[in-house]
Amino acid sequence: MEKVSILIVGKYAEIECNLDRFRDHFNVLKLSDLSDINKIDEPELKKVQAIAFKGHSTLNSNTLKKLPSLRLISNFGVGYETINVADAKAANVLVTYTPDVLSDDVADLALALLFGVSRHLLQGDDWIRSGSWREKGEMPLNKKISGSTCGIIGLGRIGFEIAKRLESFKIKIHYYSRSRKNVSQKWIYHKSPVNLAKVVDNLFVSLVGGEGTRGFVSSEVLDALGPRGILVNISRGSTINETALLEALEKKKIYGAGLDVFENEPNINARFLSLKNVFIQPHQGSCTRETRKAMGELQFQNILECLAGRKALTPIPEMN
Amino acid sequence: MEKVSILIVGKYAEIECNLDRFRDHFNVLKLSDLSDINKIDEPELKKVQAIAFKGHSTLNSNTLKKLPSLRLISNFGVGYETINVADAKAANVLVTYTPDVLSDDVADLALALLFGVSRHLLQGDDWIRSGSWREKGEMPLNKKISGSTCGIIGLGRIGFEIAKRLESFKIKIHYYSRSRKNVSQKWIYHKSPVNLAKVVDNLFVSLVGGEGTRGFVSSEVLDALGPRGILVNISRGSTINETALLEALEKKKIYGAGLDVFENEPNINARFLSLKNVFIQPHQGSCTRETRKAMGELQFQNILECLAGRKALTPIPEMN
Repeated sequence: MEKVSILIVGKYAEIECNLDRFRDHFNVLKLSDLSDINKIDEPELKKVQAIAFKGHSTLNSNTLKKLPSLRLISNFGVGYETINVADAKAANVLVTYTPDVLSDDVADLALALLFGVSRHLLQGDDWIRSGSWREKGEMPLNKKISGSTCGIIGLGRIGFEIAKRLESFKIKIHYYSRSRKNVSQKWIYHKSPVNLAKVVDNLFVSLVGGEGTRGFVSSEVLDALGPRGILVNISRGSTINETALLEALEKKKIYGAGLDVFENEPNINARFLSLKNVFIQPHQGSCTRETRKAMGELQFQNILECLAGRKALTPIPEMN
Repeated sequence: MEKVSILIVGKYAEIECNLDRFRDHFNVLKLSDLSDINKIDEPELKKVQAIAFKGHSTLNSNTLKKLPSLRLISNFGVGYETINVADAKAANVLVTYTPDVLSDDVADLALALLFGVSRHLLQGDDWIRSGSWREKGEMPLNKKISGSTCGIIGLGRIGFEIAKRLESFKIKIHYYSRSRKNVSQKWIYHKSPVNLAKVVDNLFVSLVGGEGTRGFVSSEVLDALGPRGILVNISRGSTINETALLEALEKKKIYGAGLDVFENEPNINARFLSLKNVFIQPHQGSCTRETRKAMGELQFQNILECLAGRKALTPIPEMN
């Protein structure tokens, strides 16, 4: 019997994508980038029943119409804002993603970013390497985190994990979310992100991406956070008004920012590189071997289950 | 009435030492370093009743015999291994220190160091600045921390705070201490640091300094930790056999090390600077404005209480 065809899209590390196993089950087509789709012959494309998708390119009806047999897009990652869900629904294509397995890593990195900014970790390293420790003595004093008050914008899976960790640092938790969540009574809900930013020392952004949250963290939110406040973003660059953020950082309207995500990655705004009050990382929230292996496994299992006619493990919420 | 004389020793940031308030209460003598003590006239020295001590120079009978009226050494910090306690006792001089107020900051930094190593934070920053993100895509995968097993060598105040924080990262806690502690039943006690290192993924050193713990973390402990293990030291450089540590790092016998403390600070071994698997900081464990202010306050209150004939707030354990 002929194997079912699937299309693997994106650049995967070896541990993320077990090609041998895919080939045991499927006829595998591969693309580094979706924009090369026309390099695959039309008859081959017409047989593709599932896409294992990891990529930053847009996946919408333009692609879907080339794939008439497509039943599933199995996204690698928890963010799927590059996939046009309405188009997928219209084409009767299920979309799955890989939630939960990456929440721990992203939350861990969120805390690391907070300390990167507050404890001046880059300056500390440089204080040793430049000889300043020897010549000038102690490095300049920095900022305490334990015992502070922190706010979470977007209390989904990752926001929840961030809050749980922060609590162990004797930190009081406030949050904004579209609706009040069924969480610890000690966590204080705010209906407005500006009001949230006003009462907290430090602010984490863990919103979903996409058009619905574009520029959600506005200049008003940053002003409310104020000159002693640290902003951490591990969600998507789009959730923050980056023009406002750069101005706030340059004019020291806020204390600093820990950023794993940016607009226009990887071609990020060069102004970030001259700032001393940022701690930046190259969108590596889920970038551990352990987690990427788990994400690849979940992506594979979604394909396996769905194409066998069983229930996919983790469809995106819009598909429920 | 003539004010009581006190001697302030060390280099203090402004926030650490409220000189005006000291002068309200006392006749204040000052030295940046104890080795300059002979610059103060003998009659002045003979009147000194307390030292506000912040310093890395040795304070023993050589100094004490110049200060016949001395009743108190009020140390700034929780480590006081440069003060010869036996000599102080013999001269009937009380020694106080500043515990508790700095435990949060040191524990915070311990976790930051762990993530610095595991999540390759310096490489992440460099991945952006060097253009690699743009040219090569994602940075190389790194190492997950949440859900791992961690060991604490020395479960004092700071070790306890580290463990409490780690628990919120779904981390299982093991510890070594001279005796079993009255802590969570879930924390597993080990009588031997080698056995502890064998069973954990990552290892924190939070021992007291001084001769009693010199080289306590031996090559055997490092071998037991193994090539996937991260070592974090926020105690004193002396607690680790640094020759063994450098060899372990260079030969990748362990995964990496997060180090806030070193032998011979600030003239640390240059071999640390060429290693890619370390995350280093210039002994800044308690280096936040909030904590240094609190330490200065406690140092002052110990002097105020003691010289007024009342009970000092925080005498070192050997004085109880």
